Amino acid sequence: MTAHALHSFFWPESIAILGASPDLHRIRGRLFRQLHENGFPGRILPINPSYQEIDGFQCYPSIGSVGGGIDLALIAIPAAGVAAAVEECARAGVKNALIISSGFAEEGGAAGDMQAELLTVTQRTGIRACGPNCEGYYNALGRVATTFSPTVETKEDDGRTLVSEKRVGVIAQSGGIGFALFNRGKAAGLGFSYVISTGNEADLSMADFLDYIVEDPHTHAVMLFCEAVRNGPGFVAALEKARRLGKPVIAIKVGRSDAGTRATASHTASLSGSHTAYHAVFERYGVIEAEDADEAVAIAGLVLTCPLPKGRRVGIITVSGGGGAWMADTLSAHGLVVPNLSADSQAALRPLMPSYGASGNPVDVTAQGSNTGPAMMTVMEHLAHSDEIDMLVLVASLASETRVSLDAARVRAVAESCGKPMTVWTYTLPSMFGRASAAGCGLFVHSDLRNVGVAMGKLAAYVEALRRELPEPFTPVSGRLYPGLPPVVPEYLAKQVLAAWLPDTREKLAASAEEAADAAERLGFPVVLKVQSPQLPHKTEAGGVRLNLADRAAVTAAYGAMLADVARHAPDATIDGVLVQRMAPKGHELVIGMVDDPTFGPIMMLGFGGTTVELFGDVAHAPAPVDEAEAIRMIMSLKSARLLTGFRGAEPIDLASVATLVSALSRAALTLREQVREFELNPVIVHADGSGLTVADALLTMKT
Amino acid sequence: MTAHALHSFFWPESIAILGASPDLHRIRGRLFRQLHENGFPGRILPINPSYQEIDGFQCYPSIGSVGGGIDLALIAIPAAGVAAAVEECARAGVKNALIISSGFAEEGGAAGDMQAELLTVTQRTGIRACGPNCEGYYNALGRVATTFSPTVETKEDDGRTLVSEKRVGVIAQSGGIGFALFNRGKAAGLGFSYVISTGNEADLSMADFLDYIVEDPHTHAVMLFCEAVRNGPGFVAALEKARRLGKPVIAIKVGRSDAGTRATASHTASLSGSHTAYHAVFERYGVIEAEDADEAVAIAGLVLTCPLPKGRRVGIITVSGGGGAWMADTLSAHGLVVPNLSADSQAALRPLMPSYGASGNPVDVTAQGSNTGPAMMTVMEHLAHSDEIDMLVLVASLASETRVSLDAARVRAVAESCGKPMTVWTYTLPSMFGRASAAGCGLFVHSDLRNVGVAMGKLAAYVEALRRELPEPFTPVSGRLYPGLPPVVPEYLAKQVLAAWLPDTREKLAASAEEAADAAERLGFPVVLKVQSPQLPHKTEAGGVRLNLADRAAVTAAYGAMLADVARHAPDATIDGVLVQRMAPKGHELVIGMVDDPTFGPIMMLGFGGTTVELFGDVAHAPAPVDEAEAIRMIMSLKSARLLTGFRGAEPIDLASVATLVSALSRAALTLREQVREFELNPVIVHADGSGLTVADALLTMKT
Repeated sequence: MTAHALHSFFWPESIAILGASPDLHRIRGRLFRQLHENGFPGRILPINPSYQEIDGFQCYPSIGSVGGGIDLALIAIPAAGVAAAVEECARAGVKNALIISSGFAEEGGAAGDMQAELLTVTQRTGIRACGPNCEGYYNALGRVATTFSPTVETKEDDGRTLVSEKRVGVIAQSGGIGFALFNRGKAAGLGFSYVISTGNEADLSMADFLDYIVEDPHTHAVMLFCEAVRNGPGFVAALEKARRLGKPVIAIKVGRSDAGTRATASHTASLSGSHTAYHAVFERYGVIEAEDADEAVAIAGLVLTCPLPKGRRVGIITVSGGGGAWMADTLSAHGLVVPNLSADSQAALRPLMPSYGASGNPVDVTAQGSNTGPAMMTVMEHLAHSDEIDMLVLVASLASETRVSLDAARVRAVAESCGKPMTVWTYTLPSMFGRASAAGCGLFVHSDLRNVGVAMGKLAAYVEALRRELPEPFTPVSGRLYPGLPPVVPEYLAKQVLAAWLPDTREKLAASAEEAADAAERLGFPVVLKVQSPQLPHKTEAGGVRLNLADRAAVTAAYGAMLADVARHAPDATIDGVLVQRMAPKGHELVIGMVDDPTFGPIMMLGFGGTTVELFGDVAHAPAPVDEAEAIRMIMSLKSARLLTGFRGAEPIDLASVATLVSALSRAALTLREQVREFELNPVIVHADGSGLTVADALLTMKT
Repeated sequence: MTAHALHSFFWPESIAILGASPDLHRIRGRLFRQLHENGFPGRILPINPSYQEIDGFQCYPSIGSVGGGIDLALIAIPAAGVAAAVEECARAGVKNALIISSGFAEEGGAAGDMQAELLTVTQRTGIRACGPNCEGYYNALGRVATTFSPTVETKEDDGRTLVSEKRVGVIAQSGGIGFALFNRGKAAGLGFSYVISTGNEADLSMADFLDYIVEDPHTHAVMLFCEAVRNGPGFVAALEKARRLGKPVIAIKVGRSDAGTRATASHTASLSGSHTAYHAVFERYGVIEAEDADEAVAIAGLVLTCPLPKGRRVGIITVSGGGGAWMADTLSAHGLVVPNLSADSQAALRPLMPSYGASGNPVDVTAQGSNTGPAMMTVMEHLAHSDEIDMLVLVASLASETRVSLDAARVRAVAESCGKPMTVWTYTLPSMFGRASAAGCGLFVHSDLRNVGVAMGKLAAYVEALRRELPEPFTPVSGRLYPGLPPVVPEYLAKQVLAAWLPDTREKLAASAEEAADAAERLGFPVVLKVQSPQLPHKTEAGGVRLNLADRAAVTAAYGAMLADVARHAPDATIDGVLVQRMAPKGHELVIGMVDDPTFGPIMMLGFGGTTVELFGDVAHAPAPVDEAEAIRMIMSLKSARLLTGFRGAEPIDLASVATLVSALSRAALTLREQVREFELNPVIVHADGSGLTVADALLTMKT
């Protein structure tokens, strides 16, 4: 296997620092000092014509004067000089540049032009660049600290017991936050491989770094802090690789609210995009979303220390009755199950605890049971090997600086033999000793109760996501171009555009009352009439719909009256004709839609008609292509799905026809992507099982 | 003002320790040592015939031999001897007993009898007792440590800067968790007044302690850890007092899930009760609910350091663009508003920051802006005095052990002059120095991002709850006894029982087809027929409902057919008759119900008919009595309320008639409380504004 293209970026044998300085008040000075003091084992090459040497390192007047062989150049000079400096680096054979300097696209205007110029240089010369406007990276195993972040101080690491040999890598679009994740994770005992701040991503983007890090043998999980993905397809490919390699990706996405989006836009010079699209992509690839840093650390703690759980049933062993009840509530609130133990299990456990303990689950060995030693360990062994639970959590107090009631050898033996996730929550704040003792047992310590529920729930959901097969890739036949369509395409035309993907629609566009009546006779009564006009996407409001017409006479009368109403409402609208449809039999009304996301492509949407989408946000999304299994999952993920499957004795509906339609429309969306921005079929009336569905209306919006 | 009855319990001048021992492996030994070492300023009286003195304190052979004047006796002897010991204490004139011993009601069986015996002693003698099965209490200001909890060690307090002069008191039904709240709060800089573990509450209950603590001048806020309230009316009275005195109560209630309820029942020998009822009571009195310890600490941090906010608009000042966006997302997710600042404000702020900063809100002064000093302070002063925001949060990194960019005098001046809540979130973990520096500015430091949103959101909701007036108390006229009602009361009878509180129902019970047809003519067609039987609460399923009958003939035919159907479905049912009602005009269907909670009395319920209650849990609750203003708030709190107020052009409905009905029914519930366990009016059809409503069905369940 050849080395990854970014190997020389993350594991350089030589690093040049442009404008290196002994002045620690300047970023260039701090960069030099930090690189050196963190024990970088390769060559450090200060470049500065003003010095002969800095801190004992020979200083070079220019990058060209080093004589080649430079893997990485650190650049923190004023923005105006950066493009030229990168060009000079490329001429000197430097493989990679890391640009800390700010003042590019994030400022807008002429500063944005400088970033474009920088990109031109990298593309022309082939040098790869990280940044600008980044905080550098830290490679913990290689002792490469190309950052001025004060969180990177090797001393603090000393003496801390890591919870696992496994390590997590951080990729962040905010340097401050990326290194804060490192800072918080380290305090909780996590080992890190890399922390990388990507900045403005003029050349290298989050997708490139993710691709590197998921392949890296030192990295077992990834944390992303993400404001806006710039290379959607590359990012998705890297997520797919992470999934294939079994490396969990924990993602924090900001810009979910209006204010957050505004902040993100001004911070990284890019739109944060549709949160819906991100969420759909994350769900597809099993990305674990976290909302804050401690959540991300808690999830990483489990991921690095635990095998994957086989289900959602959790056993709780507690030394505090109140703490056990609280844990049970918290786990239940996060979709986990705390089953009452069988009579056999309880009979086995009861003798291990005082009379005021509890054997049900939570198993309350009481503080007394904990102090007298073996009870907690024996209960742990019993539950770990019981087929009644899938995961195990200990509720304890790890505040003491001197005492802990865990037997490391025994806990490790249990954990290894049972193959189930095990973790600890301490209701008092954990002492350093408490954390280290638990780490010695291979257990991650949670201080935050809520995050035990979050992390265990997300771990279970991750396993479920891995079990699902990804849809087959779909490569559309190109060239399906529809010339001359209006920006908003009315129903009859939308159905023609989508015809190859829709069930037989059985309808007719009529240009006169006579034609309409003839069509109605062929289709069969009762029928519906709907005016068709590119200017009237909302036909009902314009008076342009007539339902339930029972015979020729009714059709003829309705035709004229409807056109008169429409003419009053919208005298200037172009009328393409009147659509005649057989009135659909009753059924459940769904909405199926698609919006083409600029980052991730078509995102399919499915919900119930009526008001539940708007009032309760009861709607499911997935990126195209969607296969039929995923379409069924989308439906069943809706709260309203209970209506479809026998709620209050309702007749089951034809789910298979919905799955077929959603899947076909997702291929339509990919096929028509160059032209079609969004479409919505609303309502899609789904009939009883085996009776299919009726697409009762459709609207399509073109890209302009 | 006379001293509170519990003053001598919390501020004793003399404490006897029954069975005091020099052996620190025994709880009695640790109690003695801890009381002494924490500097209790009063008399310590070891009672133990085996010793002359312990650690230099004179030891007494019996409580009677002390010679009286004892405020508090600590009892940690085996359960079997406790009642006799308390009796002996009472005889010796001891005012209060604190019983640490376990082995009472929490074990069930004969042990429960010992608790009953203990209660008999306290009631007969008048001595007040806390416990049994508790962990004692800590009075921080009085230096009274009557607990063996290792979290109570005065040394740890030393050198820690409290965030405020104000203090919080903790009342917990789990000692381990109560002292864990103390442990966590102390680390975050909170000052505590009392921490009390209530145990089994044989005599003194949470309500008594709450009543004491909210009156206490040293206590400005309360944290409750609550498994089950034993004295509902006393607890509610104490909550009402807390509200009147402006002392926020932060409550953690466990036993919300099935597993949590199971754990609580086995732990404290009491049912945790209906979470719905607790939540309704908490909401009524402005109790701030917290789900975990760090949430509770974060809320207390704001409550002790901040004035109350006037609204939900938050200004964010950040040194990290990513951190600011993240904060904006988090606040928005918790119901707060992060408004874009006006052009004027932005023009004023822009010059204070580097070109790549942001002035919108979040205001990103950048790390540069922070380091160069005045920017953050000046922006803070501007926003604090701006009428565009109600609260202020600083996003910073307080990891450094040496540097911080806050000017304490200036921050304190701003905070005092603006009267707005201000707080800090640090994205790196806060150092001791960072916390102390912020505390010096009067600012509470949040380490957990999510809890900034939680705490600010809950603070805003608390203010809103204080602004609402409590309903007038309602004392029912007693003696409304309905003899001979069946356990499940059918519609016609339910409506008779509730008649005084319902709008005119215009219906008639018929005993024959002829009577039904006559009644229909008087009421006006179309009508509905419904069979009435105590055995058939679900009439429709039994074939016992006929709708929309247009004339005499239809009524006569339907009557016979319906009774035949019912006879087939339930041949043994007693038929009281057939109810004839005018068919209600269309409208929105609501459900109004009541369940009498054993702890808190009647809880009113309101939701939409159909499936939204079950599918989406879209339902509101409030304790009786409910006044009309509160009934309107209940309706408007539903997500479906948008349907009532012009959603998609719908006609507004007669909200006033709903409010009148809910309010009247809440008085009915109180009046009938001795007999009626629950009722449900479903559907209540609400007509257009001014047209009232129709109670289309009613069911009532009696207490047995």
